[in-house]
Amino acid sequence: MIYFDCDYLEGAHPKILESLIKSNMEQLEGYGTDKYCEKAKLLIKQHCNTNDIDVHFLVGGTQTNKTVISSILRPHQGVISAVSGHINTHETGAIELSGHKVLALPSDDGKLTSKQIEETYLSHINDSKKEHTVKPGMVYVSNPTECGTIYSKTELSRISEVCRKHNLPLFLDGARLGYGLTAEGNDLTLSDLTNLCDVFYIGGTKVGALFGEAVVITSDALKEDFRYFIKQNGALLAKGRLLGIQFSALFEETLYFDIAKSANHLSIKIKEAFLQHNIPMYINSATNQQFPILTQEQVNKLEQKYSFCFWEELEDDKAVYRFCTSWATTKENVDTLIEDIQTL
Amino acid sequence: MIYFDCDYLEGAHPKILESLIKSNMEQLEGYGTDKYCEKAKLLIKQHCNTNDIDVHFLVGGTQTNKTVISSILRPHQGVISAVSGHINTHETGAIELSGHKVLALPSDDGKLTSKQIEETYLSHINDSKKEHTVKPGMVYVSNPTECGTIYSKTELSRISEVCRKHNLPLFLDGARLGYGLTAEGNDLTLSDLTNLCDVFYIGGTKVGALFGEAVVITSDALKEDFRYFIKQNGALLAKGRLLGIQFSALFEETLYFDIAKSANHLSIKIKEAFLQHNIPMYINSATNQQFPILTQEQVNKLEQKYSFCFWEELEDDKAVYRFCTSWATTKENVDTLIEDIQTL
Amino acid sequence: MIYFDCDYLEGAHPKILESLIKSNMEQLEGYGTDKYCEKAKLLIKQHCNTNDIDVHFLVGGTQTNKTVISSILRPHQGVISAVSGHINTHETGAIELSGHKVLALPSDDGKLTSKQIEETYLSHINDSKKEHTVKPGMVYVSNPTECGTIYSKTELSRISEVCRKHNLPLFLDGARLGYGLTAEGNDLTLSDLTNLCDVFYIGGTKVGALFGEAVVITSDALKEDFRYFIKQNGALLAKGRLLGIQFSALFEETLYFDIAKSANHLSIKIKEAFLQHNIPMYINSATNQQFPILTQEQVNKLEQKYSFCFWEELEDDKAVYRFCTSWATTKENVDTLIEDIQTL
Amino acid sequence: MIYFDCDYLEGAHPKILESLIKSNMEQLEGYGTDKYCEKAKLLIKQHCNTNDIDVHFLVGGTQTNKTVISSILRPHQGVISAVSGHINTHETGAIELSGHKVLALPSDDGKLTSKQIEETYLSHINDSKKEHTVKPGMVYVSNPTECGTIYSKTELSRISEVCRKHNLPLFLDGARLGYGLTAEGNDLTLSDLTNLCDVFYIGGTKVGALFGEAVVITSDALKEDFRYFIKQNGALLAKGRLLGIQFSALFEETLYFDIAKSANHLSIKIKEAFLQHNIPMYINSATNQQFPILTQEQVNKLEQKYSFCFWEELEDDKAVYRFCTSWATTKENVDTLIEDIQTL
Repeated sequence: MIYFDCDYLEGAHPKILESLIKSNMEQLEGYGTDKYCEKAKLLIKQHCNTNDIDVHFLVGGTQTNKTVISSILRPHQGVISAVSGHINTHETGAIELSGHKVLALPSDDGKLTSKQIEETYLSHINDSKKEHTVKPGMVYVSNPTECGTIYSKTELSRISEVCRKHNLPLFLDGARLGYGLTAEGNDLTLSDLTNLCDVFYIGGTKVGALFGEAVVITSDALKEDFRYFIKQNGALLAKGRLLGIQFSALFEETLYFDIAKSANHLSIKIKEAFLQHNIPMYINSATNQQFPILTQEQVNKLEQKYSFCFWEELEDDKAVYRFCTSWATTKENVDTLIEDIQTL
Repeated sequence: MIYFDCDYLEGAHPKILESLIKSNMEQLEGYGTDKYCEKAKLLIKQHCNTNDIDVHFLVGGTQTNKTVISSILRPHQGVISAVSGHINTHETGAIELSGHKVLALPSDDGKLTSKQIEETYLSHINDSKKEHTVKPGMVYVSNPTECGTIYSKTELSRISEVCRKHNLPLFLDGARLGYGLTAEGNDLTLSDLTNLCDVFYIGGTKVGALFGEAVVITSDALKEDFRYFIKQNGALLAKGRLLGIQFSALFEETLYFDIAKSANHLSIKIKEAFLQHNIPMYINSATNQQFPILTQEQVNKLEQKYSFCFWEELEDDKAVYRFCTSWATTKENVDTLIEDIQTL
Repeated sequence: MIYFDCDYLEGAHPKILESLIKSNMEQLEGYGTDKYCEKAKLLIKQHCNTNDIDVHFLVGGTQTNKTVISSILRPHQGVISAVSGHINTHETGAIELSGHKVLALPSDDGKLTSKQIEETYLSHINDSKKEHTVKPGMVYVSNPTECGTIYSKTELSRISEVCRKHNLPLFLDGARLGYGLTAEGNDLTLSDLTNLCDVFYIGGTKVGALFGEAVVITSDALKEDFRYFIKQNGALLAKGRLLGIQFSALFEETLYFDIAKSANHLSIKIKEAFLQHNIPMYINSATNQQFPILTQEQVNKLEQKYSFCFWEELEDDKAVYRFCTSWATTKENVDTLIEDIQTL
Repeated sequence: MIYFDCDYLEGAHPKILESLIKSNMEQLEGYGTDKYCEKAKLLIKQHCNTNDIDVHFLVGGTQTNKTVISSILRPHQGVISAVSGHINTHETGAIELSGHKVLALPSDDGKLTSKQIEETYLSHINDSKKEHTVKPGMVYVSNPTECGTIYSKTELSRISEVCRKHNLPLFLDGARLGYGLTAEGNDLTLSDLTNLCDVFYIGGTKVGALFGEAVVITSDALKEDFRYFIKQNGALLAKGRLLGIQFSALFEETLYFDIAKSANHLSIKIKEAFLQHNIPMYINSATNQQFPILTQEQVNKLEQKYSFCFWEELEDDKAVYRFCTSWATTKENVDTLIEDIQTL
């Protein structure tokens, strides 16, 4: 069986594992105050082209989303998100558990527009009984989105502008950020994100690490006391070194980007194979997730050899499925898949 | 510098690391549904002498305490704990964040007594305005406690009896459980805990793992839907395999207990050295943490060569300090420390 | 200016006020344990045809919704509601504040169907990764709905059946219940609600009282400890007598129903006047709220003499407005309005 | 039976009731935006000698404490309170329900000292692992305290000074404020509270109103969006007029203070009677609550004719009881009690 289910099927990229092995017996302070965390923070600051940011390391995505969002919002505020946003769909209500409504806006491609955000905000502010409704308090976007699409620099700049105009902190969920920043057509950089967002994170779990998400806080107002929030949300790893070591390995040179680029390359090959065989894609993704629309018959054939994800039911006995690539996906397996697609 | 600060100074025990390396390239399902998690669960069930328990793997202690406690209590209920309980002191109010008061009872040695628990419960139930106060909804104990003491089988049995009599689920925090179960004088086993507690956990982070806590739910009523709580609290590791692999290594044979026993042995040697030199201990600990009462002068001397923790201010310029041993503590370093204690 | 803005424009119905005056100097126990509360509970039990219910008095609707819902749900559960449900729209996220997602289902007329509920529940339960999403834990309906429509006995019975089949407590928000139970076409009684719902409330604030909502708990499982939840949510009135006295006045004879019937009668007259003048209604309401679709010109004319509510923007310069009647609405004022509608 | 149980045994003071009756049929806007609320706000501003405050009306004390405190604190912060503070003892954990720990400090007389507060704050700030513990985020005091004692202007000024120095908002619970401000020995005024506190409230429920607490926010930072918090906590009364009318009656002239002064006067007479009869008081209260230490025999005698509250068990078969006076307590009943005390 060849797996295309997700981008966290294996352990860690060999270079990361090697760093963990090498440093295993060093005695280091706990809770992320060790030298490897310091180093990783410095490296990320260099990649972001500024020292004026705070970097923290957390373990997983839901944890990070919850910790960041609940640290920002006051009790009467909600977070604007695309209806497809991970916080709105697949985090078991973690945001609501922390007391906040997700203000979900419609979206076909997983993205929000600056226009939507501004209309939502103004519609609230101009409501004469606004205190009876949840106040928009921040904006959550994911890049790439849950369906693999990416924001252009222009799009994100407009969103950032609207957010700053209305004092809405902008938070970018980068669980798969690497794939976005190295996608064909992408024109955003870490430095751009630093300028445009108030807080974002660089996902490690899905880009070669055992686990780990690096939160970058650019807004001074959001920096204060963040370690309390990490601890309070059960996200302060005792052996914090593990995060510092992994992110050091990812950012010491260009490993983070190399991993993502290679996975994107294989993903695009799969997409093209489907399209050439007249199998439509649910959405045009430039990143490491592809969403072909398959008939049950096609699924039956592919399932004999491949494992992949059911995504969404459509009409006419068709459905959307997800094929994912990662640092560990081999060219050979992709080629085999492409061959088999041609026989569908 | 020789470190006695805590039991999570190094990475993982070599045997655990080896398992992680060996399995690194295997493709496995996410979120704790892989074969290693299954195996680790089976091993723990064998150690607990029953199949009638649910085992789940979480990442860290605060996370586990919060997830378990908030899964049990209804909104008007609080958790009875010793005033020194970790949930009451060092988790940044994570329990309160989840909506519940910690009903902290006085304790000199970190332990609760069955009498205290019953009195607290009855005093509440017999209050004519009880609905104006928080209802005791469960009991939290830690074993070993935060100051290294352990419960005897008799003590824990009495607590369990009172808890069952009054329908108070009993939760045992075993962040350092191994050290307790292998301490001199201990007469509790995993099988006893399974019989006496409604839920407890076997700490990995502080007993040789990179991270990880194995939650054992014995009460049927508490088993339902537990995976939702893990996910909702940001505690469902994407690469759940990492937990399964580590706990398999710890429980395949007797590694978990070997690690703890050895650390206890070295710890007792340190305690005896202090006592022989007429340096009093704050509490009589049989586990891997020792708490000598030192003068500032003694501290100054020791600090030149050793790193250890400040614990609590006392009168007369004295204070309590903590010395900790672990799987990675060497006999050589302990011997050197003992020599230096003799020169104080 | 003649007001049709809402059904809480005046103080209390004169009979209620009279009871409050008459009992003012009596010395009574606090927190709802007085004889008037006992009497009101007894009267409501008689109206519901059973002694096997618990009755509690709270102050307002949002408070009641929040207290009831958060007393039922466990942390990972959400409440199914129509998208137009009051808890989803006009309670400043009080449900989310208490940690729970509102699982909002589409609805054109403010009502849920048993089919929707069952599909939602089954779709969750059959999801292989269901623990990544919020579990439906109960169902919230309002009767009359926020747009004045009512459930038939058949509709509510089907919903009740589905709820019981899937162990989803059914909660009916009766902030305007009187208007529903006395509407033309209604075939539900308090006794039916007692049989079909697990908990519901009889709204007093909008049906002649100064304030007050009588919560009726029919499900044994939901009765336990409810007074703790009231207190904890800041909803336990010190002078609880005020609630007992008012609900005694409302239910001693048929005042509650008389008030509602009379208001419905006047409301229907207003509706008919609009329709006869070819002004369409946004929805066909049989209760005390009417929703004509007016042009800006029509609004401008009416606003010179009447006060009423903006409800929702439509296309073509039209919008929905709300006209409300209550116990205090006079036949004279309605007749005047009807005359003026004819000149639009 | 003559009742001295509490200060909320009757309905409303006749003058308040009269205002409610007189205005009953007026048509007024809901949710506290009516002319009576405006008037009451203006009156309170005049009594506080400033226009630069925001005044809001809520229904009850627990509700007010919860709404105010949760509007101020961020998730990682707790509220410093005397261990005897109402929020720590008799609100069913409402503060914890909203996510925050009550940082309870020891107190013999129900009061906090500036020294305690500063030590608590500094001890936190100077802790090298402070992010593992709850951060003090504000200070809660009650005046009079739960046991009837009052703060002097000097004491409260020192507390205020420490709070401002360390950026800890100071919140004064004035559920019985009137009794404090008119007590013999008191030197605080509403104007002083306005200068010294960031937010406080003027209790109506226990000083002659049917219900109602007037929150005065003096700190600009705490004013923003407060109506959202009221609504979200289920504390926004639909017929908000009821609060405006009552507080207008209380503050149009000096009714609020007259009520309290008279109750204090009778209370002191009771205290003196006990003391003259060598019955010790648990605490020296200058306000409307008295706490004699009685033997079971004395209680048995008194209970034949009087109703009063059990407060706290002491040793030697003795216990503390509470006798309370209010606007409705008659001189006759107090004289009768005094006579009977002399026969004990």
